Formats: sequence, structure tokens, C-alpha cells
Amino acid sequence: MSDAGERGKVYLVGSGPGDPEYLTVKARRLLREADVVLHDKLPGPNIIALIPEHARVDVGKRAHGERTPQSAINLAMVEHAREGKTVVRLKGGDPTVFARGGEEMTYLAEHGIPFEIVPGMTSAIAGPGVAGIPITHRDYASSVTIVTGHEDPTKDESAVDWETLAAAGGTIVVLMGVTRLPQYTQALIDAGMDPETPVAMVERATWPDQQVATGTLETIVEARDEVGITPPALTIIGGVAGIREDVRNSLEGNDD
Amino acid sequence: MSDAGERGKVYLVGSGPGDPEYLTVKARRLLREADVVLHDKLPGPNIIALIPEHARVDVGKRAHGERTPQSAINLAMVEHAREGKTVVRLKGGDPTVFARGGEEMTYLAEHGIPFEIVPGMTSAIAGPGVAGIPITHRDYASSVTIVTGHEDPTKDESAVDWETLAAAGGTIVVLMGVTRLPQYTQALIDAGMDPETPVAMVERATWPDQQVATGTLETIVEARDEVGITPPALTIIGGVAGIREDVRNSLEGNDD
Ligand SMILES: C[S@@+](CC[C@H](N)C(=O)[O-])C[C@H]1O[C@@H](n2cnc3c(N)ncnc32)[C@H](O)[C@@H]1O
Ligand SMILES: C[S@@+](CC[C@H](N)C(=O)[O-])C[C@H]1O[C@@H](n2cnc3c(N)ncnc32)[C@H](O)[C@@H]1O
Repeated sequence: MSDAGERGKVYLVGSGPGDPEYLTVKARRLLREADVVLHDKLPGPNIIALIPEHARVDVGKRAHGERTPQSAINLAMVEHAREGKTVVRLKGGDPTVFARGGEEMTYLAEHGIPFEIVPGMTSAIAGPGVAGIPITHRDYASSVTIVTGHEDPTKDESAVDWETLAAAGGTIVVLMGVTRLPQYTQALIDAGMDPETPVAMVERATWPDQQVATGTLETIVEARDEVGITPPALTIIGGVAGIREDVRNSLEGNDD
Repeated sequence: MSDAGERGKVYLVGSGPGDPEYLTVKARRLLREADVVLHDKLPGPNIIALIPEHARVDVGKRAHGERTPQSAINLAMVEHAREGKTVVRLKGGDPTVFARGGEEMTYLAEHGIPFEIVPGMTSAIAGPGVAGIPITHRDYASSVTIVTGHEDPTKDESAVDWETLAAAGGTIVVLMGVTRLPQYTQALIDAGMDPETPVAMVERATWPDQQVATGTLETIVEARDEVGITPPALTIIGGVAGIREDVRNSLEGNDD
């Protein structure tokens, strides 16, 4: 795709939740056409297998248990682009949902590298859907909030305000929230949310080994452990999470 | 795809924001294979053109200015499925984001019709992305809330709590919020949000005639009118909306 003398370009591309059929047509085309694809493990083995071998660069590799630092990834994008190459920086889900897409964009712009964002299906929306949970619903939720569960909600400096979230009354989707599930479900109960609010967790949504656990704010920690939910997984909190049980008999797809 | 005697099935499919390259690989396959595709206008002409003519059923048509009632669409899905057909109910964006997917699921389950949800790229995430706006960012937002701007925020019974949203501090993405822009930007300022908070509007994201307007909570109404933003469009409120101007020189794609 690259000609000598041509200016390179970086595509910040979302891979979707893992099933290659949830790639967008555009992402699939770019994976085939790119000179270099910088990826980590989150897109999943079935999608990484679609990248021609000569183009694959794993930037998620850990040498001695260390992650490739973000600065090295930034540098690699710029260097390849300056050689006139078509570069894909591939991210799981959508490149701007808890994925440092914003920092990478800014870095590319500061270095004068042309780029394009190629949105992908975020797990935050695909995950509930394939599990039979509509994230908005006339009867339950006229908003949905996507948050990170990575931070300790008992710490004062926590960037996520669970108290406000409890008051907002919409659906809450928590990414990176397997380990701290006990803390934030308790924080929501403490903030006045009904302990019987339905909660569901979806692990590896759209992967062949997808798993779902359901319960309430009070019971989901136990359900998580019974099913054996481990990352990557997301948590859906709100009335809509209860719909799965109502429709389960008819629900097909990855779920049966 | 359907055999006599075989049980039909309904796929609730998201079309993405409008550019056919933002269909998922799965949605594109289903559009080709389905016996019937029930669609309205929101997916856009370029996507509707991909549906084989014999399968196309426009359920968004208005006779004498009236919309096809939801009950008629529900009935059509069930009837076609009972004839053993593979039915696609095609929605703009994602089928569960302000799209009645939840109600349709429940109806299908009540009538014993097998169904599958096929999530699509919601405009709420694709729109900001293609306009150079990352909806989450370490420095600005550790959450994003998607809301409807359809309701009058000055009414007591408004389901969207703008005061709470102003307090939450994350990115806010408003769908169906072109007309009521003056009301909800004012509601956010009244609730204590900085009037200089960056705001962007994206009309027909990913369409050939995409338009973007930028400003602040105070100036966006003027910017909307200058650019001539009309529905379908979305509004992005929060620090991240300012990033577009920082990266604009390098931003390519639909935007240049
Ligand atoms: C660093 S975040 C990146 C999110 C990604 N950019 C997206 O839009 O989906 C990683 C988190 O995403 C969620 N996640 C990603 N893929 C998932 C999947 N297939 N099923 C469930 N959760 C997933 C998990 O919460 C995981 O901890
Ligand atoms: C009834 S809602 C359906 C949303 C859809 N299910 C989705 O996930 O994008 C219709 C609203 O979606 C937004 N919308 C849909 N397509 C859009 C596009 N291409 N660009 C900007 N906004 C869009 C507009 O706010 C529009 O008023």
C-alpha cells in the first residue's frame, strides 16, 4: 500500500469484542492492507490470526513481566509512518474507550503524522447485547454510563463517583471491574441503590468460551465466584440486567 | 436460507452509523442472507442499497405522516419467523441504544420466537471517534454517559437528571438532542458546570455529508446554527471535546 516518497499514515483501529465477525468491514480491510499492525493481546487470537504474518508486531509482549511502555508504542507508530508505511494500531473494542487512543492521537498530531480513528464495537455495548441485555429501555433506563472499575472506590481520590452514579438511575456498565466488584457494589448500596438491583457479568463476550453470571447488587459476588468469571469481563448494573432471564428461552447465538 | 419446516429466527441487527464500511462483517453477511429485512430510514441509503431488493421491507414509511406503529413491526417479525424465514430487523447504530431493541426482544420471547442480538457500532461512540474526540481520556474523563436529549429538561418528569450528570464529571454524549440543545446546555450550566466546558456536535457521522460544530456550553447553540446542524446529530460535552482542535491538522478520514 505504501509507495516510496508517499507519506505514511496511522489508523487507530478498534477490533471489536473478539469474534472476527464483529470486526467492521473497514477494520477487516485495513488489517489486510496495512504494512504494519501494532497490536497487543486484547483483540484475541482469532482476530490476530487474520493479520498477515509479515505485518504483525506484538507491542503487548512483556519482557521480564514488563509491558511495552506507551512511549515505545508511540515512537514505533511515528517511525513506521515516517518510512511511508500504512500503520494500524489495533485495540480491543473501540480505540477511545479506556484504551489510550486519546493519548496516541495527541502524540501523532504533535509529530505531524496523519491519522484516522476507526471506531470499533466496544465490549461495553456488544457484551450486554449478546447476553440478551438491552442497555437502554423505555421502562428502565434513559441513560447508560460506562466506567472503569479499576480504581479503588474506598480511596478518596477515586476518579469514579459511585455516589453520583447511584443517583443517576441509568444503566451502569463497568469495564475492568472483576477484582473490585465487592467494593463498588457495596459503594452503590451504601449510596442508597436498591440491593436487589439486577446485575450481570459477561466474560469474553462473543468469544467461544463466553460466560455470563447474573444476580443482584447483593448476590453478584457469589455468582461471579460460582461461575468463575475472570478478566476480561464487564459488569452491567440496573433494571435492564434482569431482562436476560425473561428472554432466555428464545435467546440464541453465542449464548446457547 | 430457510427450509420448509425449519423454525425461523429473528436477528436484531445494528447497522452502525451509516457508512457501509462500519457495518460489522456479521451484519453484512446477514443482510445478504436474510429472507426479509425490516428496516426504517436511519441506517441510511448506502446501507439500505446493500439489501437485496426482494428482501427489503420499509417499516419506517409514513402513511399520511404517520409512523408504522411498533405493534405492527412486532407482528411482522413474528409472522415472518413463523413462516420459517430468516428475518433481520435492521436498526441504525446499535439495536439496544435508544432503539426499542429491548421491547422487541421481550415481544419475541413472549411469542416463542428464537432471536439473536447482533450489536452494531452505535453513533454515540463512532460519531465522536471519527470527529477526533476520544470519549474517555486519562486527563479528562474516566466515564462516559450516553443520554437522550429528546425530553424537555425543564419538565419535572424528565427522565434525564442533568443536575446529576453535571456532577458526575465524565463525558456526556447526547443523542436526539439538536432541538433541545439550548435547554440542556442551560440546565448543565445552572447545575454548576463550567460554561466554558468544550462541546462538539457531529451530524451524519461517517456519511459523505458529515458536519461538525464546536464551541462551549455557552457558545454551542450559536455554532450549531452557523454550521446548520440538523438531525441526525449528537452532542459531546466535556474536556475531551476540546481535543479535536488540538489534533485537527493531522486528522484524516471523513473529516478532511
Ligand atoms: C483496557 S479496557 C479496553 C476496553 C476496549 N477498548 C473496549 O472498547 O472494549 C479492557 C476491559 O474491557 C473489557 N472487555 C474487553 N473485551 C471484552 C470482552 N470480549 N468481554 C467482556 N469484557 C471485555 C473488560 O472489562 C476489560 O477489562
Ligand atoms: C433513535 S436514536 C437511535 C440511535 C442508534 N440506535 C445508535 O446506536 O446510534 C437516533 C439518534 O441517533 C443519533 N445518530 C444516529 N446516527 C447518527 C449519525 N450517523 N451521526 C450522528 N448522530 C447519529 C442522533 O442523535 C439521532 O437523533
